[in-house]
Amino acid sequence: MSRVDGEERGIRERPALGDEQTIRERPALGDEQTIGSDFLQLDAAAVPADGKSDWLAGRLRRAMADGRLAVGSRLPPTRLLAADLRVSRGVVAEAYRRLTEDGHVEGRRRAGTVVVAVPPPTASPPLPASGRPAPGAALFAGEPGTDVFDLLRATPSRVDFTPGRPDLTAFPRAAWLRAERSVLADLSAEHLGYGDPRGALPLRRAVSGWLARTRGVQVDPEDILIVAGIAQALTLLHPVLRADGIDAVAVEDPGSLGARQHLRHASSLATPPVPVDDEGIRVDALRATGARAALLTPAHQFPMGMVTSGERRRELLRWARDGGLILEDDYDAEHRYDRPPVPALRALLADDHVCYMGSVSKLLAPALRIGWMVPVRRHRDALIDAKRFNDLGNAALPQLVLARLLESGALERHLRLLRDRHRRRRDAMTEALAAHLPGAVVHGAAAGLHLTVTYAADVPDGELAAAALSRGVKCHPLSWHRQLPGRPGLVLGYAATPTALIREGVAVLGSALLRGRRTRRWG
Amino acid sequence: MSRVDGEERGIRERPALGDEQTIRERPALGDEQTIGSDFLQLDAAAVPADGKSDWLAGRLRRAMADGRLAVGSRLPPTRLLAADLRVSRGVVAEAYRRLTEDGHVEGRRRAGTVVVAVPPPTASPPLPASGRPAPGAALFAGEPGTDVFDLLRATPSRVDFTPGRPDLTAFPRAAWLRAERSVLADLSAEHLGYGDPRGALPLRRAVSGWLARTRGVQVDPEDILIVAGIAQALTLLHPVLRADGIDAVAVEDPGSLGARQHLRHASSLATPPVPVDDEGIRVDALRATGARAALLTPAHQFPMGMVTSGERRRELLRWARDGGLILEDDYDAEHRYDRPPVPALRALLADDHVCYMGSVSKLLAPALRIGWMVPVRRHRDALIDAKRFNDLGNAALPQLVLARLLESGALERHLRLLRDRHRRRRDAMTEALAAHLPGAVVHGAAAGLHLTVTYAADVPDGELAAAALSRGVKCHPLSWHRQLPGRPGLVLGYAATPTALIREGVAVLGSALLRGRRTRRWG
Repeated sequence: MSRVDGEERGIRERPALGDEQTIRERPALGDEQTIGSDFLQLDAAAVPADGKSDWLAGRLRRAMADGRLAVGSRLPPTRLLAADLRVSRGVVAEAYRRLTEDGHVEGRRRAGTVVVAVPPPTASPPLPASGRPAPGAALFAGEPGTDVFDLLRATPSRVDFTPGRPDLTAFPRAAWLRAERSVLADLSAEHLGYGDPRGALPLRRAVSGWLARTRGVQVDPEDILIVAGIAQALTLLHPVLRADGIDAVAVEDPGSLGARQHLRHASSLATPPVPVDDEGIRVDALRATGARAALLTPAHQFPMGMVTSGERRRELLRWARDGGLILEDDYDAEHRYDRPPVPALRALLADDHVCYMGSVSKLLAPALRIGWMVPVRRHRDALIDAKRFNDLGNAALPQLVLARLLESGALERHLRLLRDRHRRRRDAMTEALAAHLPGAVVHGAAAGLHLTVTYAADVPDGELAAAALSRGVKCHPLSWHRQLPGRPGLVLGYAATPTALIREGVAVLGSALLRGRRTRRWG
Repeated sequence: MSRVDGEERGIRERPALGDEQTIRERPALGDEQTIGSDFLQLDAAAVPADGKSDWLAGRLRRAMADGRLAVGSRLPPTRLLAADLRVSRGVVAEAYRRLTEDGHVEGRRRAGTVVVAVPPPTASPPLPASGRPAPGAALFAGEPGTDVFDLLRATPSRVDFTPGRPDLTAFPRAAWLRAERSVLADLSAEHLGYGDPRGALPLRRAVSGWLARTRGVQVDPEDILIVAGIAQALTLLHPVLRADGIDAVAVEDPGSLGARQHLRHASSLATPPVPVDDEGIRVDALRATGARAALLTPAHQFPMGMVTSGERRRELLRWARDGGLILEDDYDAEHRYDRPPVPALRALLADDHVCYMGSVSKLLAPALRIGWMVPVRRHRDALIDAKRFNDLGNAALPQLVLARLLESGALERHLRLLRDRHRRRRDAMTEALAAHLPGAVVHGAAAGLHLTVTYAADVPDGELAAAALSRGVKCHPLSWHRQLPGRPGLVLGYAATPTALIREGVAVLGSALLRGRRTRRWG
């Protein structure tokens, strides 16, 4: 390379050199200081037997990254460095050539080889998860931010009443592994390539059977879309709803904060609140919002727990026939203790008005990120497109493993096991609540993985949740899940917590509430 | 329930009845016809010992879904049906009560119990994957649609030269399963709950090490975001780029059709084409587009295969310092046969100008849907938000399994195994091309999982690809990956195809090209 040659001519013009000492004594050339090899901490004894050029180029890069070789510095002439390191000149020239190719250095003929770009520093200072201060009382002050659930999850606690988790210690690890071995044993290689964005057919078939058996929903596998949880279902719906002229999705109030955040994020869908009562959503109030879509939790309202009554179902059908679209979030209907099963709204309403969504998050584990949608017919192709462009479809292996568990009856057996455990934990919680929060009203205990308690409006629930967290007990204030004003309360998940900790945690809630009241009474 | 009681009074007013024959003879009441139990195919012998009400309600629902009990039909009076089925009247009343609760029927006092809403039909007619006609020549005619890759994948073939897949038969199934067993053995239950949307920390650490070892990228685990493939990375970037005032992302030309579709979808980012030459992207032309972001494949340009030269890297750095953002799609840099490793642009360019993206799709399998982003600092929090709202984070188990494979060296061993196989397949393809397409120019064969051939501009490449597909050989026409005009060509993946099939497939391409030329020459 001529650039290196230019250096060569420069070297010949200087007095011949033979040893390290002479190199150190060389005066600086021009404005750019020539860096001696000892400054670079390059040691002839460290040169490897093979890959000398690789090694040298790497050391030089590291020196650039560390700041020892700044932009503008000049590399030693090849002959000098080669002599220093007791390698052939070709080795040094090759290393310099690579650094030139990479764009780190440029040959400038008589001015030698100069550093023009350095790699970024090796380690950036760790940023906190979101740049926000550590949580605690701050978590529950003001409007919950988009990362509030992350922050809560990151806060250590002794008792965790975060709603929405089944008993995770019961996750059927052995069954999952057996199913995965079986899947891998049978899997043809092509299924490891890019797959169908609608989801693996075996899983869509298995989900079709599952929905018929457990939710009364009769649906063809062709009409099922496998998604990464109900969260992603809401994300995929954004552009489809907008294209349908829908700019607002009415939500239940109280109603899931997480779902509302999902609907509002990025796409700025409005989320007008509609009050619920003991029969479910107030359909007259829904009509009054003028919204053309509604996100509902009909089988077990979140967070208050009621089942949508037959009368309200009929009203919803009339609303839908007048042009409304129902988004059914069927998040935990399989978990019930004291009441008969409730078919999905999709199974019960005539015509094609319900976009049905479900997942394994409350059946098996949220960490699996597998869910399904049964869209209304007119949205199906657009949702498949949206899924394709989102992530090219769910990962294949977990889908096939889940299909095996659904087909073999393992999931039904798991549910029966969970039901007994969950019922005992529910009982422990209701007993503890009766003992420690005697004035509080318990809502939604007949089914699900959580219940809600409301109490007299004296201590704001955010304050109560903060006090609880400072004493090691995590829970959601009911006000997180409200847009309209209402009684304070706490949303308490029990399914994932052993009964002894449930009792301990509820005792903490009781004393925190007592303390909060005393503080108010006596200033 | 008073509605059922109203029926009772109606029944007493009619003559007493005792047997099925009398029921059939009963005249219709009013406009709604009363359906006899034999019409419903209800058989007293079929009544189960337990769960009678369940059974009856289910049969009635099925009758509604099948159309045998239409809206407006009247259910038999409870006393009659009970007598018919030889059950207690309470059983029938309970079944009717459930159907009323569900919203299917309403009591109308003297008019009896009437069907008001039926469930949707049990099976919808299967829709084709996208409503389009079966593929074939149609696939390659006109502009490729958003589902073109799905359609191509769904088309059966004998030889599949679809680019972008490693040897999938080499997927390390036993190692994957061992790692998963090990993960499940150690996993604490809380990691089965909702996780960190940035990705599991063990994987971010393992990816940090991997990137340093293989791509020269020094990055802290805190700066890595685990995503569902590079496809999802592009999706997550949409809103972040727009919020940054970026409405156009320049793309290489030729350049990946899939990536371009992802950028354009939903968010309508413009994708101005920038020509490439044998040194990589033409940075002068990039400047001329005025775009403030560019999607590049610097280590192995897709589809033409060249490496971005040192000079172009320096030009890119100047462009970036003038305000440009580089999106680096580092899709298959680990696969190289005849040239030394090329560090990532992220490792080479100073300052924080490169959003780096990679995945395991070409290392292990596209079906895993695991990838990573190293954003520029100013976009990091917004991308974490975007990932959270997309799907609450990647599934946890596969992340932890991959982390084990990265830490144990298993992935490096796998890569070395793949390299030998891929090299043999690359050689088989280049030899076959020399034999069967002697005039064609081969591009990009020194590395990667595919190469591109271009040939004299006589037969359009879409026509050639269609002819090949009709003879059982799948490949991409180069024109799919062009916005600007250029020589026709084919993009041929070889890594996933056994050498014998490679030779067979290339022979088909050769004869198809010959035929295409003859047809033109002689009309």
